[in-house]
Amino acid sequence: MGLVYEMPHEVSYYECDMYGKMTLSMLVAVAIKASEQQSTLLNRGTAYIHSFGLNWIITDYEIWLKRLPKVGEKIHFKTEAIAYNRFFCYRNFGVFDEDGSLLVEIETVFALMNQETRKLARVQDEMIAPYESEKLKSIKRMESILPVEEGEEAIFQIQFFDIDENKHVNNAVYFNWLFSPLGLDFLTTNVPVKIRVRFEKEILYGNQSHSLFEKRMEENRFLTLHEIKVADEVCCRSQIEWKKRETLGLAD
Amino acid sequence: MGLVYEMPHEVSYYECDMYGKMTLSMLVAVAIKASEQQSTLLNRGTAYIHSFGLNWIITDYEIWLKRLPKVGEKIHFKTEAIAYNRFFCYRNFGVFDEDGSLLVEIETVFALMNQETRKLARVQDEMIAPYESEKLKSIKRMESILPVEEGEEAIFQIQFFDIDENKHVNNAVYFNWLFSPLGLDFLTTNVPVKIRVRFEKEILYGNQSHSLFEKRMEENRFLTLHEIKVADEVCCRSQIEWKKRETLGLAD
Repeated sequence: MGLVYEMPHEVSYYECDMYGKMTLSMLVAVAIKASEQQSTLLNRGTAYIHSFGLNWIITDYEIWLKRLPKVGEKIHFKTEAIAYNRFFCYRNFGVFDEDGSLLVEIETVFALMNQETRKLARVQDEMIAPYESEKLKSIKRMESILPVEEGEEAIFQIQFFDIDENKHVNNAVYFNWLFSPLGLDFLTTNVPVKIRVRFEKEILYGNQSHSLFEKRMEENRFLTLHEIKVADEVCCRSQIEWKKRETLGLAD
Repeated sequence: MGLVYEMPHEVSYYECDMYGKMTLSMLVAVAIKASEQQSTLLNRGTAYIHSFGLNWIITDYEIWLKRLPKVGEKIHFKTEAIAYNRFFCYRNFGVFDEDGSLLVEIETVFALMNQETRKLARVQDEMIAPYESEKLKSIKRMESILPVEEGEEAIFQIQFFDIDENKHVNNAVYFNWLFSPLGLDFLTTNVPVKIRVRFEKEILYGNQSHSLFEKRMEENRFLTLHEIKVADEVCCRSQIEWKKRETLGLAD
């Protein structure tokens, strides 16, 4: 439903966790790089969007994981901007191994933010035309996220290096905030198979964020539910489904 | 004094700070990747060093910065293992722009750590032979680091993603810990021109680290002095020399 762009990538050690698996944060960052390359190729790069006083932001992720790539592995990213409506653009990514097997599938929602007012701006047809995306009247729905009922808490001070060119915490940073509080033992014995993230409010430099999480069994799915808050305001919600590492044959 | 290895690199947006400048943490991580590639090429890669029950660790950095590369810039890294003695290996890096101008120069000290005892191990000639490094009897001295006398403090909880394959905080992470507590205003108006880092003790998962820093004028040099501690033990010391951004013509 849109032009497909493909980008090869070799996984570096610094993109990996202590077990040599690519981190979600880096996987998402590299995926976004592929979409930026496509935009530049189609003359819809950062300078073009800035000329309207706008930035792209990401409001939603839905991610299906078969396996995370490992250090040294040659992978490639495929991405296409599949559809858009008045305020939202829908872009999908696939991450493939050297044999062409799908490792990770990512669905995203992009929106345009006015650099001055920090409010959402209308998507104009000319911005999207070169991507050959389908124009929709409706809004696509993603999986809903269960609320945290009784959460454990971790506190994060926003660091200079968490902030991106949009002058807010980069969306890839949130994946570290979601995963880290779960701790070494949990992250060693469990692997994520499905991740849903929704960003509700940007987080700025000088804020202090709280990451709350709760573990829950829900219709035979082992879930963790997450809220990232600044003061009492929820800025990000997430729901992650996990499987035991050994049941997936992922001990390598 | 050693075989030179060269690696091209294009700076990605996720390697950069909010001003589109490559972070020191990423610059160092990519430099180490170049040295790993050389080692693999010379059959002295990770598997070889693991076969002795050892890991490479880094004990010291001395870095001279003319300019940090910016997003999208095509740069290349050159590295050579120049010399070694019984316990330490000296490796230099240069980072060059597309025209071949030197942007950053890095001198490092590597050592071997026993994976079980976590103690330093002797460097054996056969491990180093293919690099054509000079064998030294002496120890090279780097610039000494002034102690923190009265420091301001920031606290860091060690996160799962700070830990590398050696099961301790990766050396590149420390650069974020050193810089972050200086804050947005300081990092916006000042740029580092000389960085000296010394690692004295590894930091493990579950530790809480304190980053202390102090600003000081010393013989017309504007310095920040740093200590990273776990409990009362100093794990890392650093001394960074800064210049005002505008005096360097680095406003771009």
